[in-house]
Amino acid sequence: MTLQRTPIHITDAVARVIKHTKETKIETIDYLDSYGRFLAEDLYANEDLPLFNKSAMDGFAIRSVDSIGASGDNRIAFKVVEELPAGKTSDYTLKENEAFRIMTGAEIPTSADAVVMFEQSKAIDDTLFTIRKPFEPNDNIAMRGEEVKTGELVVPKGTLINPGVVANLATFGHGKVRVHQLPKVAVMSTGSELLDVEDKLTRGKIRNSNTPMIISQLKRMGIEAKVYRFKTDELDEILEIFKELTSDFDVVITTGGVSVGDYDLLPKVYAHYDAEVLFNKVAMRPGSVTTVAKLNDTLLFGLSGNPSACYSGFELFARPSILKMLGGKNIYAPIVEATLGADSKKANPFTRFIRAELEYTGGTLYASPAGFNKSNAVTSIARSNGVIILPSGSRGFVAGDQVKVMLTDVTSGTPSFLLTEDD
Amino acid sequence: MTLQRTPIHITDAVARVIKHTKETKIETIDYLDSYGRFLAEDLYANEDLPLFNKSAMDGFAIRSVDSIGASGDNRIAFKVVEELPAGKTSDYTLKENEAFRIMTGAEIPTSADAVVMFEQSKAIDDTLFTIRKPFEPNDNIAMRGEEVKTGELVVPKGTLINPGVVANLATFGHGKVRVHQLPKVAVMSTGSELLDVEDKLTRGKIRNSNTPMIISQLKRMGIEAKVYRFKTDELDEILEIFKELTSDFDVVITTGGVSVGDYDLLPKVYAHYDAEVLFNKVAMRPGSVTTVAKLNDTLLFGLSGNPSACYSGFELFARPSILKMLGGKNIYAPIVEATLGADSKKANPFTRFIRAELEYTGGTLYASPAGFNKSNAVTSIARSNGVIILPSGSRGFVAGDQVKVMLTDVTSGTPSFLLTEDD
Repeated sequence: MTLQRTPIHITDAVARVIKHTKETKIETIDYLDSYGRFLAEDLYANEDLPLFNKSAMDGFAIRSVDSIGASGDNRIAFKVVEELPAGKTSDYTLKENEAFRIMTGAEIPTSADAVVMFEQSKAIDDTLFTIRKPFEPNDNIAMRGEEVKTGELVVPKGTLINPGVVANLATFGHGKVRVHQLPKVAVMSTGSELLDVEDKLTRGKIRNSNTPMIISQLKRMGIEAKVYRFKTDELDEILEIFKELTSDFDVVITTGGVSVGDYDLLPKVYAHYDAEVLFNKVAMRPGSVTTVAKLNDTLLFGLSGNPSACYSGFELFARPSILKMLGGKNIYAPIVEATLGADSKKANPFTRFIRAELEYTGGTLYASPAGFNKSNAVTSIARSNGVIILPSGSRGFVAGDQVKVMLTDVTSGTPSFLLTEDD
Repeated sequence: MTLQRTPIHITDAVARVIKHTKETKIETIDYLDSYGRFLAEDLYANEDLPLFNKSAMDGFAIRSVDSIGASGDNRIAFKVVEELPAGKTSDYTLKENEAFRIMTGAEIPTSADAVVMFEQSKAIDDTLFTIRKPFEPNDNIAMRGEEVKTGELVVPKGTLINPGVVANLATFGHGKVRVHQLPKVAVMSTGSELLDVEDKLTRGKIRNSNTPMIISQLKRMGIEAKVYRFKTDELDEILEIFKELTSDFDVVITTGGVSVGDYDLLPKVYAHYDAEVLFNKVAMRPGSVTTVAKLNDTLLFGLSGNPSACYSGFELFARPSILKMLGGKNIYAPIVEATLGADSKKANPFTRFIRAELEYTGGTLYASPAGFNKSNAVTSIARSNGVIILPSGSRGFVAGDQVKVMLTDVTSGTPSFLLTEDD
């Protein structure tokens, strides 16, 4: 009556998905649109940074040799010969005890070799000032190439383009940047009990919350998804839709329809099209029926119809896969240790995921179950910013135990999946 | 010669900014566009969840009374009288040893009170199955209202609309949601040394990296900014632009022009328009000259022109202020304890910010300086996902020391600023 399924460990399941994930093609986009994408090429310094010796302070550029012997009792006077705001340059050669009035960022003329900060000087009049201490060569000067030299690697390929990367693209003159294309993603929920958000509830029906949730999980990653609806449990109709989807999309995310129910038709769809089923049972709760299959070059994520299982299934499998498509290097959500903030006594033969409310209190990260905890729970997802991962085994857990938590609200990631077969 | 400035503590500076920040007006938007905004109203359950007793499993709905006495030696048989996929309901009244074939999510007919999972049954033929254990009332049934009851608070106002909140909006039928408007933000850099990204570098000039960086910091918050350029250091021209900006925008972010240089004209702009200067010196490095002023209802963030100082100044002051405008409750970036991954021996009279590379390794969060560390550094920003905060004092820090780190890559936050006057 029910399809025979062999559960595999989460780490194995994640590895299978990633192994079958390919990067999308590379495209060139405007650098101001690149936030949230990943560099498809290494970013090298194409010039020294700074490109010239520049003043690190507002003050006066002098010849340090002229400052030798200066002290409180022996103030040395300088005469200002020219003013240099940032962006202005001078080829004037300083003579003894002459100085440029110079602003932060301005090029140091070759005849000067130290900068006196305004605060280190005393004005006599508009063009005359004195100092009370000697200056060393290069004092208050940012030296050419001190940050990066031409040819050095600045940001490696596969790095998330964060605001700092955008600043570097600007610095090195890259108005265009090469990135992997956004994968085309389709989302749809199965189940004839589902109503749309503004439909009036009728007996036995519920509103579809999985589709908008996944759309938002994708938005969090910068991806706009195309939504499909099949308000049918008719196999023929679903087969027809799938034919279209797998030719048009890189990723098809479905919710529901992968369990053992009479109307769970996705296993039949995979079989009909001879899709390669990477797994159809994972040793985890909730969401053990999560199925991932590959058809041509399209990855089919068959998530559970239970909201909580659907949520963590997306974060666990679909997110790293999509980040790999985007060319990302650190594609896995960080998994950190936290102190359990409340008991969780339910024992489980499988690794258990619990939506968690994380609190950074003092030096300790506390993770507490975010409320009602059943696979069909939806309210707790709203309060969660992480997922507690309790290892399989018969014992429950109590407040104060150290547990692992997958962070779901960070853009940083890790290059390898941080669970092991022991978790 | 230089404006007299009194440095205030960072905590005081942040408090002044937030005190002078007002929420924007409320607007109603489509719930599918609401990811990343904040709820402007409490979200209450407008119906029980679940709304009806429903099957938690695929199996058979029975009268538990009929299962009394079942055992391996005494299997009890049931006859299937109707099939109930999710969404279908039945008013049929079960007679003795009759059952519904029922799928997960389907309404439990009133005459049934327990569900036998497929795996707990043995099929005799298409309409007949047996069980080997008794069932209790409500076994494998999700009870009406067990997750939330009508009238309960589900998500409080001020909460970030994450994918879970969107799922709840869907569940309770809110196709529209009330949120605070996106503040109108203008960004501009000052300094006649600045070139645009695709300009050829000429002597003494650099490309403007602060504007694109801030645009991306705003994008990370879901805000599209309007960019202004003033390639002039002429006061009259800047005054004219500011008049327009302060009438059109809620927030004006400038970079550069707030220090003590001859061309640092923003203090003159604030004075000319009689803006309320909240502070113009903060006891921190880099970015001590960071200035925030208020003119009518516009907040003017005068960030340092040094990229590193500009970056942390934005995260420290502009970000929480903008999140408050959006109606956010947890507006401050989490500040957590981490283990310093490398020495940072430079002593400093002021609190010191260092762009940090965070690594979640095992149970420990390591924070290491993200490379070249001067206020004019731009490359280290690309590698940072946090900011190390070293307290003022004469001593340096060594690898292994516990330090505080402000996380800059998370959407979660805290309701109060986690630094104190002791930091």
